[in-house]
Amino acid sequence: MKIERIGVLTSGGDCQGMNACLYNIVKMACENNLQVYGFLNGYKGLINNQYRLLDINSVYNIMHLGGTILGTSRCDEFLTDVGQQKAVKTLKDNKVNALIVIGGDGSYKGVLCLIKKGIKCIAIPATIDNDLFYTSKSLGFDTAVNNAVIAIESIKQTMRSHNRCCVIEIMGRNCGDLTLNSAVASNSDIVVIKEKPTNVSEIVKQVKNCIKRNILSPTVIVAENQFDIKKLASTIQQKAKIETKSQVLGYIQRGGEPSVNDRIIAMQMGVRAVELIMNGIFNKAIGYKNDEIFEITVEQALKVTRDFNYKLLDLFIKLN
Amino acid sequence: MKIERIGVLTSGGDCQGMNACLYNIVKMACENNLQVYGFLNGYKGLINNQYRLLDINSVYNIMHLGGTILGTSRCDEFLTDVGQQKAVKTLKDNKVNALIVIGGDGSYKGVLCLIKKGIKCIAIPATIDNDLFYTSKSLGFDTAVNNAVIAIESIKQTMRSHNRCCVIEIMGRNCGDLTLNSAVASNSDIVVIKEKPTNVSEIVKQVKNCIKRNILSPTVIVAENQFDIKKLASTIQQKAKIETKSQVLGYIQRGGEPSVNDRIIAMQMGVRAVELIMNGIFNKAIGYKNDEIFEITVEQALKVTRDFNYKLLDLFIKLN
Amino acid sequence: MKIERIGVLTSGGDCQGMNACLYNIVKMACENNLQVYGFLNGYKGLINNQYRLLDINSVYNIMHLGGTILGTSRCDEFLTDVGQQKAVKTLKDNKVNALIVIGGDGSYKGVLCLIKKGIKCIAIPATIDNDLFYTSKSLGFDTAVNNAVIAIESIKQTMRSHNRCCVIEIMGRNCGDLTLNSAVASNSDIVVIKEKPTNVSEIVKQVKNCIKRNILSPTVIVAENQFDIKKLASTIQQKAKIETKSQVLGYIQRGGEPSVNDRIIAMQMGVRAVELIMNGIFNKAIGYKNDEIFEITVEQALKVTRDFNYKLLDLFIKLN
Amino acid sequence: MKIERIGVLTSGGDCQGMNACLYNIVKMACENNLQVYGFLNGYKGLINNQYRLLDINSVYNIMHLGGTILGTSRCDEFLTDVGQQKAVKTLKDNKVNALIVIGGDGSYKGVLCLIKKGIKCIAIPATIDNDLFYTSKSLGFDTAVNNAVIAIESIKQTMRSHNRCCVIEIMGRNCGDLTLNSAVASNSDIVVIKEKPTNVSEIVKQVKNCIKRNILSPTVIVAENQFDIKKLASTIQQKAKIETKSQVLGYIQRGGEPSVNDRIIAMQMGVRAVELIMNGIFNKAIGYKNDEIFEITVEQALKVTRDFNYKLLDLFIKLN
Repeated sequence: MKIERIGVLTSGGDCQGMNACLYNIVKMACENNLQVYGFLNGYKGLINNQYRLLDINSVYNIMHLGGTILGTSRCDEFLTDVGQQKAVKTLKDNKVNALIVIGGDGSYKGVLCLIKKGIKCIAIPATIDNDLFYTSKSLGFDTAVNNAVIAIESIKQTMRSHNRCCVIEIMGRNCGDLTLNSAVASNSDIVVIKEKPTNVSEIVKQVKNCIKRNILSPTVIVAENQFDIKKLASTIQQKAKIETKSQVLGYIQRGGEPSVNDRIIAMQMGVRAVELIMNGIFNKAIGYKNDEIFEITVEQALKVTRDFNYKLLDLFIKLN
Repeated sequence: MKIERIGVLTSGGDCQGMNACLYNIVKMACENNLQVYGFLNGYKGLINNQYRLLDINSVYNIMHLGGTILGTSRCDEFLTDVGQQKAVKTLKDNKVNALIVIGGDGSYKGVLCLIKKGIKCIAIPATIDNDLFYTSKSLGFDTAVNNAVIAIESIKQTMRSHNRCCVIEIMGRNCGDLTLNSAVASNSDIVVIKEKPTNVSEIVKQVKNCIKRNILSPTVIVAENQFDIKKLASTIQQKAKIETKSQVLGYIQRGGEPSVNDRIIAMQMGVRAVELIMNGIFNKAIGYKNDEIFEITVEQALKVTRDFNYKLLDLFIKLN
Repeated sequence: MKIERIGVLTSGGDCQGMNACLYNIVKMACENNLQVYGFLNGYKGLINNQYRLLDINSVYNIMHLGGTILGTSRCDEFLTDVGQQKAVKTLKDNKVNALIVIGGDGSYKGVLCLIKKGIKCIAIPATIDNDLFYTSKSLGFDTAVNNAVIAIESIKQTMRSHNRCCVIEIMGRNCGDLTLNSAVASNSDIVVIKEKPTNVSEIVKQVKNCIKRNILSPTVIVAENQFDIKKLASTIQQKAKIETKSQVLGYIQRGGEPSVNDRIIAMQMGVRAVELIMNGIFNKAIGYKNDEIFEITVEQALKVTRDFNYKLLDLFIKLN
Repeated sequence: MKIERIGVLTSGGDCQGMNACLYNIVKMACENNLQVYGFLNGYKGLINNQYRLLDINSVYNIMHLGGTILGTSRCDEFLTDVGQQKAVKTLKDNKVNALIVIGGDGSYKGVLCLIKKGIKCIAIPATIDNDLFYTSKSLGFDTAVNNAVIAIESIKQTMRSHNRCCVIEIMGRNCGDLTLNSAVASNSDIVVIKEKPTNVSEIVKQVKNCIKRNILSPTVIVAENQFDIKKLASTIQQKAKIETKSQVLGYIQRGGEPSVNDRIIAMQMGVRAVELIMNGIFNKAIGYKNDEIFEITVEQALKVTRDFNYKLLDLFIKLN
């Protein structure tokens, strides 16, 4: 069967580079006379048959935009068989021969469901959490760390002026990568991540150690879902006898222009996705490892387990 | 009496431009053979006789730094007569003939106390809250608004990708200037400030109006101390039937490099402070109005009341 | 005559804040049921009858963009009577009752020609050169200085690493404001502007003085059209015996997101323009002075002569 | 022999991440009771016995600074045997047991000379040109591309407002990496690099093709040393009948805060250098490949030849 029309959607948490990827998918598809349907708001658009025809004009000048012009969502209905059947129907009714999904691990599980129902899919990794373990780079991660580091450095300037300790919460769901990289690159003092379990009294001890070593304004970088950072700050203040403030970095990690790195992998992955489809190769997850783009099956991709960068963590601990 | 040695301190909340101001004070003083003692951590340094001799090398390359290299604090002991007497003693013991204080309204009250005890003072306005009403510009305000706007725009990108409403809390203590200017410049939809009292159901109504007018991702900018924004977000979500997130911008408003505006007034005000001292003119608060640097007595400065920019607020409301 | 349709165009050198101004003009016009025709590429669009209907959707999300979505140009044909007659015809044929022109002094002269031919006009000042002397703020100037300062600071970092002197050329046509403000805020050492004539041997002397005072990497900020900076750098290198590089900052001063200041005056001026038209007041140039928006006739505006900030220049010289 | 004192210097063109690397070398050395002598201005400091003792205080808060606090240079005297002998004498006289050199390929050749004279060395790759081919990452490259892309995007905004073509010159000496990556990430239209020889009439043809495909403001990204871009712009303007401007990006590519990527490899490489020395392993060049830090001999490092990313170039050409 000749592919004439492909679909694309962005799903799960939005991240920087999604638009750059969309742009390059559409550009590559148009060069090769493929039509592109952009389904809206993730899997919801598949279920409800909502899409935009994406030609080169509709993606003009989006490469540098954060977020996703297609919209995205976490879609409960798509977790059901009924929802998936609606999605399959939408694709068949619209004669969309293949679907590119840009998203994180939840979105990849959705791709697997569609594959099982006979849909030809390609998955592109996009998550600031960096929790797709088969690939060493995912869209959004590099930008999110850069955003976090700029914010942490701003916060450190004011904290230092008051000799305050600061506890800063970083995103990442269940993965410590964003937190660890932000801590290293911002030259912070203490890092708290799931991958190295700790407790409040241990953290207090580390803060006290900082003060002993004449670090009068220690910075504690904490992954989300580990501690209530307001309480943690209050305990540090009481126990380590240092004024302590807390700050949740929040959504500024997710927005803003994509970094060069995220733009370039967005381009490479988007083009590869279209090439695979044109060559009749499907059901692949695209990844980046050893300075190269590669692909494995989506099933394999989801089976790769943790490969946490303990070396970097050890370096950080050794130096702090 | 010939002035040979001056003191300088930064007090209250730190802000961008304090270092630029210190730099120019020291530069101007050195050109005129005045020695500069930089007292540490605001009025605390006066009470505890802690200072650094500031020569041109010690302020080299600080002009662009956020925060304050002298440190700052809010100092309770200085509110007492005993504390103030210690401060006076420090200045006399060190033969510091005049003192420049860079800070906000709390710091200005401290200046008034010192003046009453016979100390020759000059005050320079520095507050991201913009709540010194005698001057149309204070160090830090322009930078803080620019920081807030960049952050709000990042957040809006991700909110729009999910068709979410977002409630963002802005600093400003009791003054709505930072909030209003951030809302205008970020093209947000709803502004909540003390200067125009409102309530939750009114805000919900405004969000609903946005949705009616096809604004699918409304942004609500709220001044601190007005509402619990988590609860506000939750109420909006429930009543206006739109997914709603909240974010406290926090300390990123306070840090980072000073804007050009803040650097230039820092320079002009710092130099003017030294000139006044050299000309035997004391007990003045420096300000900026009608495109000019000026000075009035500190007492007068503190008496100027509110001159809120209702015109700008009305414009914002008219357009949204 | 009731106004029902207004025209708007951007003319001359583009600058930051033009889009923010367009956005607010359209928003205000739509709120008041006025139709807006956006003429393309400055006065060329008037002559050739090229325009876009601007509704709220067509300006959605442009507030933060540099450049101008309408395009701009310097248009020779409009300098002729024939050109102006074509422009008038276009406006009459399209029943455009009033025209808002956003631009610099060349564009203002064009406005005057149209007024003389009976067209109802409002002019909004937009120029990074800051050479409309009736107003203390023009769209683009604040952003351009901020851009220049960030670039100069980057350049200084690398020059200092090599103990090099650097000569940096700044825009501004015949006006030294952009150069002087950039020099002050970047804490540079020497400024060369038309408003204070100098010559090569004087500049060399100043560089030598810097080196004597232990400034091993002096920065010379030069307004365009003053010297061939390559030759100047080469002469400095030879005569002052210091490795010297030159750099033209160029177009990066002109692009990028508008600063908060430029956005807020863009909004205030755009709204005021529409209000004036609605109130039947025409042939005004909008300005900003003494912390207020105001208007005078375009004729008066063009007659205001130089009011260069010699105070700031003197401060700079005194400190360097 | 037990190592007790190490030397470090930065050499050649400065780049972002040098300071971050110095910081981590000193931190790691101090943790392990090694003294660090920082030689000034590259190999000049070795020849002239100029150094600073680097303890933790002297590198406090430099991690985020562009340039190098040690200074750097290109040093002709070091190319001579006499110069090298002076350098060796300095190291021996000061009992510096091992030397870390941070620099590009010229600096690596210097390392080789020192090794031949019996000095124990470690080399760390630092060059925005990316022309050390044994490593996939060098300090400075990631930041330089990001800087270039931000500048190009600013320039494109103003060019588009005038429907102008723009020719932008990028650094890179003899290597097209910085140019190609900047062109891809800024979504430019035409790239001119040594690795794919072209000529003026070919470039003019490409510009004409852009215009045919309705790209009214084409951007041409040209590596330095390929063409006189002023003349190129003038030829394009004449032959392709489109107003054309040229801009040399220059030193802004080199300055500014290091990106997260550059900070993290700076840390990893700096620490690895100290570890190697402590383990008695010398004469290695540290590199990054396949997501890992590694080392090979300096001799091998210099022998690795070109591995240009033709895949990325082909992608760019295919899409444009």
